[in-house]
Amino acid sequence: MMDYVFDSMGEDIIRTEISELGEFGLINEIRKDFKTTNSSTVMGIGDDAAVVECGDQLSLLSTDMLMEGVHFDLSYVPLMHLGYKAIAVNVSDIAAMNGIPQQVTVSLGLSNRFSVEAIKELYKGISAACEAYKVDLVGGDTTSSGAGLAISISVLGITTASQISYRNGAKKSDIICATGDLGAAFVGLQVLEREKQVYLENQEMQPQLDQYEYIVGRQLKPKARMDIIHELRELNIVPTSMIDLSDGLASDLKHICFESKCGAVIYEDKLPIDKGTYDTAVEFGLDPITCSLNGGEDYELLFTIAQKDHDKLEKHPDVHFIGYIDEAGTGVNLVTKNGNTVEVKAQGWVHF
Amino acid sequence: MMDYVFDSMGEDIIRTEISELGEFGLINEIRKDFKTTNSSTVMGIGDDAAVVECGDQLSLLSTDMLMEGVHFDLSYVPLMHLGYKAIAVNVSDIAAMNGIPQQVTVSLGLSNRFSVEAIKELYKGISAACEAYKVDLVGGDTTSSGAGLAISISVLGITTASQISYRNGAKKSDIICATGDLGAAFVGLQVLEREKQVYLENQEMQPQLDQYEYIVGRQLKPKARMDIIHELRELNIVPTSMIDLSDGLASDLKHICFESKCGAVIYEDKLPIDKGTYDTAVEFGLDPITCSLNGGEDYELLFTIAQKDHDKLEKHPDVHFIGYIDEAGTGVNLVTKNGNTVEVKAQGWVHF
Repeated sequence: MMDYVFDSMGEDIIRTEISELGEFGLINEIRKDFKTTNSSTVMGIGDDAAVVECGDQLSLLSTDMLMEGVHFDLSYVPLMHLGYKAIAVNVSDIAAMNGIPQQVTVSLGLSNRFSVEAIKELYKGISAACEAYKVDLVGGDTTSSGAGLAISISVLGITTASQISYRNGAKKSDIICATGDLGAAFVGLQVLEREKQVYLENQEMQPQLDQYEYIVGRQLKPKARMDIIHELRELNIVPTSMIDLSDGLASDLKHICFESKCGAVIYEDKLPIDKGTYDTAVEFGLDPITCSLNGGEDYELLFTIAQKDHDKLEKHPDVHFIGYIDEAGTGVNLVTKNGNTVEVKAQGWVHF
Repeated sequence: MMDYVFDSMGEDIIRTEISELGEFGLINEIRKDFKTTNSSTVMGIGDDAAVVECGDQLSLLSTDMLMEGVHFDLSYVPLMHLGYKAIAVNVSDIAAMNGIPQQVTVSLGLSNRFSVEAIKELYKGISAACEAYKVDLVGGDTTSSGAGLAISISVLGITTASQISYRNGAKKSDIICATGDLGAAFVGLQVLEREKQVYLENQEMQPQLDQYEYIVGRQLKPKARMDIIHELRELNIVPTSMIDLSDGLASDLKHICFESKCGAVIYEDKLPIDKGTYDTAVEFGLDPITCSLNGGEDYELLFTIAQKDHDKLEKHPDVHFIGYIDEAGTGVNLVTKNGNTVEVKAQGWVHF
């Protein structure tokens, strides 16, 4: 029968720490053992969402897990904002495939620290996001958890074979575009962490966030850029590749280059950085450029377009041309303001 | 801006414990605030899977979350079996809609107690189940967790409008069918819990499970009854209603009755109970009938068929006619061996 012995767990004979591989390495380890065999599976692991045949359209399926103490800190993240963000980051994955989100499921693992009122607060945010992004909550699972809050969201979206944007379609001399501004969510997090320390030292003190309103909002309540997706459709532009900026520009651009087998050049003076982000980074002794390259969780879109589409987007107030795609083997390079070229290192978010 | 104060969490002004509402009550509380608005959403919350239009077919989407310490105990659940079971229980949700599973996503929250080798062991089970049920692993998320292992699986399946079985289609005098046998997974769990205690008292002792092989296997490695789904299709039978037995017969039959607005009568002497389950229940001082009514996690199928389909299934060795659907308002009743009728109370699994 089941040939096993009782075990107090974890005493492996060979033990490799997950941190040695990293999340990307671990996914690659797992990915190589799985082949897709169903004819309806168009694209499996390796992009922002899986792609599944659905009549003459394509379904997109993506999932994200948020763990308390890793992805959020409830001492400064209101539950309603957390609910909103959990939906937005999943919608963002569908946007990154040039798709339209349709349905979500929400699974919660809850410790008994959470009351019914707290859960309703969380669902208020989920509901607001569902309304904003026009998605239907269609299912989920609610269970108890030994410790903390675990949120797992899956989202189903729709697109077509002619509209879909994968990570692997960037071609030499395509223009690299980034929406919105970069690094704000990361710098906003630094503000929240500092205010939390002040509060922990003196619980009479309430946070002074007024001057940081924009960047703190970027951390607590990110937007999925569905507006851009709809505009691209109106302009008849299909990005040759796309990803959402969850890990940070450097890391996410490297994903595009890896999958598209190409290099990239970006320009320091083209990186869109909000003035408040810039000033606050300096206040914290951080380099604003590094924040915009390696700060994650902006949930802006990073995409490439063919040269022919240049003129259609050139005057868009919220889409920035930050560089171009280069040939394979050249890496990802940053041209600094004084004309030097330096290789970009991806730091991204390291959870392990 | 965001109008909030820092909070050490959980000091609600009004505080209702989740246990006061229960999972079912909580879901109903949440469900009433959500309306579905997308035309592609055929069915939202309230069945084994959500139903989404997909060309001339229907997509099915379901999700489940398993938390360490709540749904599994790694001291006696081998990681490989856990991976297998996590997929099987999700496939079972698609089966319960009379659908064919196609794709799954797997999200993991992992504490640093888990090595790369341990995760690979988990994925070995996931891979074996994907092969057995012919589903493709197409995505997921791997992240760290403050404590313990969290597994969230989503599954996408397919069916058609003429094949689908909801929970709400049972009609008066339909025949109630249960596959396989009932209560084994619950009794198997009692064996594992007892052997764990023995082991904790003396770690030299390895478990004596040989005589409990079948029931322990039912707990550790449940099967999703896709075989039955394929057979029903061959026999041209579409169940009028269907659910999978995850919470226990009493609770799951009540779900069908609630959604179908009907009552039900089942017969004690028709309940399929394996001899080993029966004997072991008695050994543990448990009533075997109660185990078969309230023991969860068998992942057999409970469904109703119209009288016209009686003859096609009558001789099926693994489908048991256990009763019939009665009119609304009559409740769920059990006719005992000595001819008494007693109302069935649902206990099911209470995680909170």
